Amino acid sequence: MGLFTTEGVVYKPVKDVDLGPTSDEVYLSPDVKAPRVAGFLVKLFAWFLESRIFGTILLYVLKKDNLIHKLVSFAEFEEPPLYVPLHPFEDGNEQEVKCIGSDLSPTEQVKEAIDCLPLTSKTSSDGTKPSFQRWTILEYSKAYLSGEVTPLKVAKRFIAAVRESSNPPLSMSFFINYNDEDILRQATESTLRYQQGNPISVLDGVPIAIKDEIDCTPYPTTGGTKWLHKFRPCTDDACCVKHLRSCGAIIVGKTNMHELGAGTSGINPHYGATRNPYDTNKISGGSSSGSAAVVSAGLCPAALGVDGGGSVRMPAALCGTVGFKPTFGRVSHSGVLPLNWTVGMVGILAGTIEDAYIVYAAISGQLPSHQSTTSLPKVYFPLLKSTKSISNIKLAKYGEWFNDCSDDIQKCCSHALEKLHECYGWETVEVTIPEIEAMRLAHYLTIGSECSSLLSSHLKKLNMAELGWDVRVALCVYGAFNSKEYLNAQRMRNRQMQLHKNIFAKADVIVTPTTGVTAYPIMDDALESGELDYINGAALIRYQIAGNFLGLPAVTLPVGYDKLGLPIGLQFIGKPWSEPMLIHIAFAMQELCISDCRKPKVFYDLLKDD
Amino acid sequence: MGLFTTEGVVYKPVKDVDLGPTSDEVYLSPDVKAPRVAGFLVKLFAWFLESRIFGTILLYVLKKDNLIHKLVSFAEFEEPPLYVPLHPFEDGNEQEVKCIGSDLSPTEQVKEAIDCLPLTSKTSSDGTKPSFQRWTILEYSKAYLSGEVTPLKVAKRFIAAVRESSNPPLSMSFFINYNDEDILRQATESTLRYQQGNPISVLDGVPIAIKDEIDCTPYPTTGGTKWLHKFRPCTDDACCVKHLRSCGAIIVGKTNMHELGAGTSGINPHYGATRNPYDTNKISGGSSSGSAAVVSAGLCPAALGVDGGGSVRMPAALCGTVGFKPTFGRVSHSGVLPLNWTVGMVGILAGTIEDAYIVYAAISGQLPSHQSTTSLPKVYFPLLKSTKSISNIKLAKYGEWFNDCSDDIQKCCSHALEKLHECYGWETVEVTIPEIEAMRLAHYLTIGSECSSLLSSHLKKLNMAELGWDVRVALCVYGAFNSKEYLNAQRMRNRQMQLHKNIFAKADVIVTPTTGVTAYPIMDDALESGELDYINGAALIRYQIAGNFLGLPAVTLPVGYDKLGLPIGLQFIGKPWSEPMLIHIAFAMQELCISDCRKPKVFYDLLKDD
Repeated sequence: MGLFTTEGVVYKPVKDVDLGPTSDEVYLSPDVKAPRVAGFLVKLFAWFLESRIFGTILLYVLKKDNLIHKLVSFAEFEEPPLYVPLHPFEDGNEQEVKCIGSDLSPTEQVKEAIDCLPLTSKTSSDGTKPSFQRWTILEYSKAYLSGEVTPLKVAKRFIAAVRESSNPPLSMSFFINYNDEDILRQATESTLRYQQGNPISVLDGVPIAIKDEIDCTPYPTTGGTKWLHKFRPCTDDACCVKHLRSCGAIIVGKTNMHELGAGTSGINPHYGATRNPYDTNKISGGSSSGSAAVVSAGLCPAALGVDGGGSVRMPAALCGTVGFKPTFGRVSHSGVLPLNWTVGMVGILAGTIEDAYIVYAAISGQLPSHQSTTSLPKVYFPLLKSTKSISNIKLAKYGEWFNDCSDDIQKCCSHALEKLHECYGWETVEVTIPEIEAMRLAHYLTIGSECSSLLSSHLKKLNMAELGWDVRVALCVYGAFNSKEYLNAQRMRNRQMQLHKNIFAKADVIVTPTTGVTAYPIMDDALESGELDYINGAALIRYQIAGNFLGLPAVTLPVGYDKLGLPIGLQFIGKPWSEPMLIHIAFAMQELCISDCRKPKVFYDLLKDD
Repeated sequence: MGLFTTEGVVYKPVKDVDLGPTSDEVYLSPDVKAPRVAGFLVKLFAWFLESRIFGTILLYVLKKDNLIHKLVSFAEFEEPPLYVPLHPFEDGNEQEVKCIGSDLSPTEQVKEAIDCLPLTSKTSSDGTKPSFQRWTILEYSKAYLSGEVTPLKVAKRFIAAVRESSNPPLSMSFFINYNDEDILRQATESTLRYQQGNPISVLDGVPIAIKDEIDCTPYPTTGGTKWLHKFRPCTDDACCVKHLRSCGAIIVGKTNMHELGAGTSGINPHYGATRNPYDTNKISGGSSSGSAAVVSAGLCPAALGVDGGGSVRMPAALCGTVGFKPTFGRVSHSGVLPLNWTVGMVGILAGTIEDAYIVYAAISGQLPSHQSTTSLPKVYFPLLKSTKSISNIKLAKYGEWFNDCSDDIQKCCSHALEKLHECYGWETVEVTIPEIEAMRLAHYLTIGSECSSLLSSHLKKLNMAELGWDVRVALCVYGAFNSKEYLNAQRMRNRQMQLHKNIFAKADVIVTPTTGVTAYPIMDDALESGELDYINGAALIRYQIAGNFLGLPAVTLPVGYDKLGLPIGLQFIGKPWSEPMLIHIAFAMQELCISDCRKPKVFYDLLKDD
């Protein structure tokens, strides 16, 4: 039995690990051997994997090749497993926050959040008006209140825009489902409320899109598949959707996603490849591809996604939007498609941090029902009247990791840090974060095993032909781990939790690029078969894992563009429950970047007359 | 892939499960096909299992045969996994309890507990003095205070007794290690304290033995093996041992156990088969075999064990002692040999419930260090001045399960319930507890996977010849589960937690026989090879699992004897953190049974002169 023979890494005690800049811990960038595969080869690969004998051998080799044996399966840990990244909630002793308890209604929470906002967040630091800007929730609200436009009018423009974008030549594949009647009905009701002078909140009449992984009537929840909704009918709104509705938001449809969230490109063989508004020949990123793209293209100021392995932050970065993933447990998961138990969290995609913040206020404040042993966290809002007020933030930066990305990204993100230092005097602390690649593998093993356990009852009733080829490959690998490997992954989770705790003793947040590459081309041979591009995949997911595996909150902001004019994102990763500080930091960062925000090639202005 | 083909049970929602006496849920008694195997056949079996090809096939067949595929691996659950049976702690609103907070020292806690005791707990209900009784902790303390005997004298008698019992003809194999000098040194110090008139507590000078799974200087922690201590040296006392020392107890050595706790017979090929003091040709049960036997034989009023699958309660029942397993998390696990993470708990073996209660007071009150999200539970002590005071207890009884044991046990345990009704008016509520066999398999899968993960780093450095044959078989099966099966087992844990919550809405405790059989013969062919006796094994473990898999507190008491004069135990399983009520009930039960307590064939009276 492998058990008694194979060798694995022996991890040293956490207390002995040097996290300083001169640490002898080596940075391990995944040396992915697999070449990009698409078309017939993907199908062949899937066939092999699904055959019992070849499959077993192939999987063994794959796992070995990817270091998963050495770093996880047969590694030696001192730590016991930590199965759920649910952190004990301590009252945040942060500067400049307002605690509003956890018993307010969504509308009340939104109102509290608005009261904390600065008067304007959209003039850049030097006061110049930005060349381009997406309309914010507050601007929608203002336009509705002044009567210059009605929700109904906006809804009609929205429907026209979606129709145009869905058809050739654009074929953006933004949505899996949207329903004209349902949209117009909501818009009519909202318009009436404004006419009667009693809108519910600033979100009243604001179009918001929902990833097709979140239950939302009257639509089925496909999870990007052609079959899942047949086994799991959608009978009610998810908790977060209920909250948005109760604030008067118009739910405009279900956005496209990578099938089962099992990929990062957003290329969906059933509903089309979601195209990037900045360049329609490039991917949008995934798995929340549609939610990022619709916000980028101006169809909604904000949209909901789900982030189990960077699925909100990656497409946000590639499409030039804000992506905000709260602490694990901050937003109720009830009504979210169960694809995993311990790494996924509802996240927000928005044009500005301000809008992400407002939507966060609307949906935050409930624990997943099965997390019974932890008390409900209070909701804290940052007082944002002045971003200057928050002083001497310490940013932890791991140089080797930070720089393991394209030159454009590296330059752009480094420049952003310099600006933060110039304008606010924020210091960058050089650190070493060990075992990043080992954590990525442990996360993969975990999400794979959980997804496999959750789907197996459906899959055995399913004709595999209904699944995309790349997903069939993923599912084979997902199901190939033993219980010892799963437990070792949870021991790595505990270990990394402690290591990160020690990092956060040196700094307030960890700063990284959001992705290692910008949006890459959509190849024709991938459209029907999907593709296996582990090199680009690894570069996209490089900076995501701590946010999911350790349940840490994280936010990505657009901070510039590469040579091709494709957006670049910068990510801040915070301590557990430190959303207020993250929002503070994001506001400050946005002030420095918003002036050179560029307009996407595909953009719809729903507040202006045509 | 099996995943897509094999069929499993589809469990109905918990709310639809009828837990009443007329429920249509079927009771499934494990139909174990495997015959008893020992000697050469065990070795052959182990060889097969350890060979990669045959092993894989054999294990597949074994798992299928034992229903584990149908009931766990491929079953369909609505529940998410519950990984750790750590219950949120609610302040007990029980009758007749005294909360003493969680900040007292062990000696203070013991004092508080003593204050709660009735004046005497050893006259039976009808006032008659019992024919035989073991000396209690309070009687030791009284004898020391009166000076009629000293701790040193007792220590010398103890050493002589252990020496006699270890050699032919008895060869009881009580201890793996004991050290005359260390024992005499402690006894001398204690004697001095009494002479100076300042004993530390009622435990001062009282001999207490420790299972060789718990760290205790100056001894190695072998876990019943010949090798584990080479990889994991014992450098300090476990937390629970520290507590006992701080109360003045004399730690008299490390008791024998089933190797790695991976069996229930207590037959250890390296240190001998622990023999039952009531019949030296019978097993003592396990895995805490030595701890039960030394208490039974009068060598200590109490001993510590560890209960991961009934390992304290089973040998207690077979040896005619009290066995007490507190709620998961009630006693610190630091310094206990890590053989699993989520099912094991330090437990107490004692001659009377009074003594179990005193030792419980000394060691309780700390959470395992890695359970960070739950607050430290307060310690509650029952006010035991009068057991009459606790009225109308409701006892949940599942008839089919309760009666799935030998006739003698069934009659004896039923009679005990009748007496409880006669004397206290306690009602028995007929219930149905579904999926007991499925829970047993889920627990087996869990403890196996965890044990395998914890030992694998040692095992790969080990010459397998150093392991007992039956344990080699067990380890092969332990390592054979995949991550989906592990996760399904945790979903079953969540499901059973909810089902038991509903049972406890109908009654205060669940009552069962402790074992399905009494002590069975030690066959010569098992002494060197160990034996695989899954039929007796299943009968022993039948009533144990909820205490471990769900972390519920449980206590077993001797309530009679079978035709051969072998002890019979009755078990009470309580709600989480309901130790006070369990102790109350146990005192009441003991009052009704103590009068016909019988003396073991092997018994040492350390307080009387020879």
